[in-house]
Amino acid sequence: MFDTMTIVGVGLISGSFSLALKERGLVRHVIGVSRTAASIGKALELGLIDEALPLDAAVDKSDLVYVAIPVDATVPVMQQIMDRVTARQIVADAGSTKHVLCESLAGHPMRSRFVATHPMWGTEYSGPEAAVRGAFAGRACVICEKEKSDAGAVAIMEGIYKQLGMHIVYMDAHSHDMHAAYISHISHITSFALANTVLEKEKEENTIFELAGGGFESTVRLAKSNPAMWLPIFKQNRDHVLDVLNEHIAQLRKFKSCLEKENYDYLRELMEHANEISRILK
Amino acid sequence: MFDTMTIVGVGLISGSFSLALKERGLVRHVIGVSRTAASIGKALELGLIDEALPLDAAVDKSDLVYVAIPVDATVPVMQQIMDRVTARQIVADAGSTKHVLCESLAGHPMRSRFVATHPMWGTEYSGPEAAVRGAFAGRACVICEKEKSDAGAVAIMEGIYKQLGMHIVYMDAHSHDMHAAYISHISHITSFALANTVLEKEKEENTIFELAGGGFESTVRLAKSNPAMWLPIFKQNRDHVLDVLNEHIAQLRKFKSCLEKENYDYLRELMEHANEISRILK
Repeated sequence: MFDTMTIVGVGLISGSFSLALKERGLVRHVIGVSRTAASIGKALELGLIDEALPLDAAVDKSDLVYVAIPVDATVPVMQQIMDRVTARQIVADAGSTKHVLCESLAGHPMRSRFVATHPMWGTEYSGPEAAVRGAFAGRACVICEKEKSDAGAVAIMEGIYKQLGMHIVYMDAHSHDMHAAYISHISHITSFALANTVLEKEKEENTIFELAGGGFESTVRLAKSNPAMWLPIFKQNRDHVLDVLNEHIAQLRKFKSCLEKENYDYLRELMEHANEISRILK
Repeated sequence: MFDTMTIVGVGLISGSFSLALKERGLVRHVIGVSRTAASIGKALELGLIDEALPLDAAVDKSDLVYVAIPVDATVPVMQQIMDRVTARQIVADAGSTKHVLCESLAGHPMRSRFVATHPMWGTEYSGPEAAVRGAFAGRACVICEKEKSDAGAVAIMEGIYKQLGMHIVYMDAHSHDMHAAYISHISHITSFALANTVLEKEKEENTIFELAGGGFESTVRLAKSNPAMWLPIFKQNRDHVLDVLNEHIAQLRKFKSCLEKENYDYLRELMEHANEISRILK
């Protein structure tokens, strides 16, 4: 579908995206842009990219520019890209927040060439070594401010994501950030905090290692996530994250209060209510 | 190794235990005991058990009696079993708490026939349909108060768990309950509370369903767990669970405070500290 694509950032998301497009013959040539020489070397070695170039040169050669770097860095880098882009090119990002980025591009003369996307897939690992085949399938891809993008550009990006097995969900940027706080960002905060809880209480690291079972690993898995990626997300989505974090602390205090007061009827009710999540998640 | 084993409770743990022993030829005949006729029927149908009997008759015919029912029900049922047991039989439980049960059996004349075990494996599902092949492998099995059990009985139970791929960890009952609160019970509470948080904040159930990705599913998975199993665990292990829950709320308040005060340096520190969990979990 594309002759040449540039991925800005050569990590988990962009690397997996490149592998997926190459595997399906959707792109011939992939250029990688990264400030980190070691990442470029690794990305070339792993076949995530075919060539490395500075940003401007890469953009000029590309049909699609796909940006997957920390969301704070995305804002100025995207400005630089959009200032060079022509009406025959498409620019898309994969960021976990959308409001700040969309705002920053709102008045750009080339705004219609940009498609704001958030493929809701990831793992707790980062860097080019974290890229995997078969990523994205079965998950949602949110597209924001669809009406501000060129219809053809949107159709092409949707077509790609659908070929990767994703279903498309449309939202305005504000709604996206709110829902992302509920469904994704809070899970990372609870996981980080749970890891710190256990590291604080369980001074015998060997015991953690010996006893940790599937349940613990599953709830604490996201605590391995890269702060360089997640700090800017929490920062940009501060209000929504605080809102849901306050609710989460309130919910935990209900459990605490039930245990303190030995109110086991209400404790059972809280657990039964939580069970409803299985009805929704299937 | 055994001719006849009774499993008391025919669910996730006892069912998977039965399948594992049968698969390895470690038992010839398995008797199931359950108050629920439907569970007995299902367990027979799934081949988890060969026969169903009332408790007393089952115990009398068994070389090993394996109890895996909610930890509050375990206490009186175990008393009934131990009152019938002879010096040629072994009794073991698989409960997630150990202090209350061990205390209740401390003065029993047949105490040495009982081995207190906690194979630290499970899923969020329950009932006979939840039983799976290949369970237990790679996880820890805690054995408590080893010195109060007959050495031969301990050796036999250890041999079985090792053949299932588990490694054995020895602890006194109090230490077990403390460590279990840190490594397992708190994960369940955070998961229950996270489910309630999202159900409270995200009124659009369809959005949860559409957007939920791997990270959310992983942190909220344990919220599907059965309250009939987990309420008695929290009740018996109340002091330790409250202790670690208080710490967890304190850790979450640090994240909240960082966001409120926009203290992003400290927020990064909290996340980097949490990352240390990957060093321990590998």
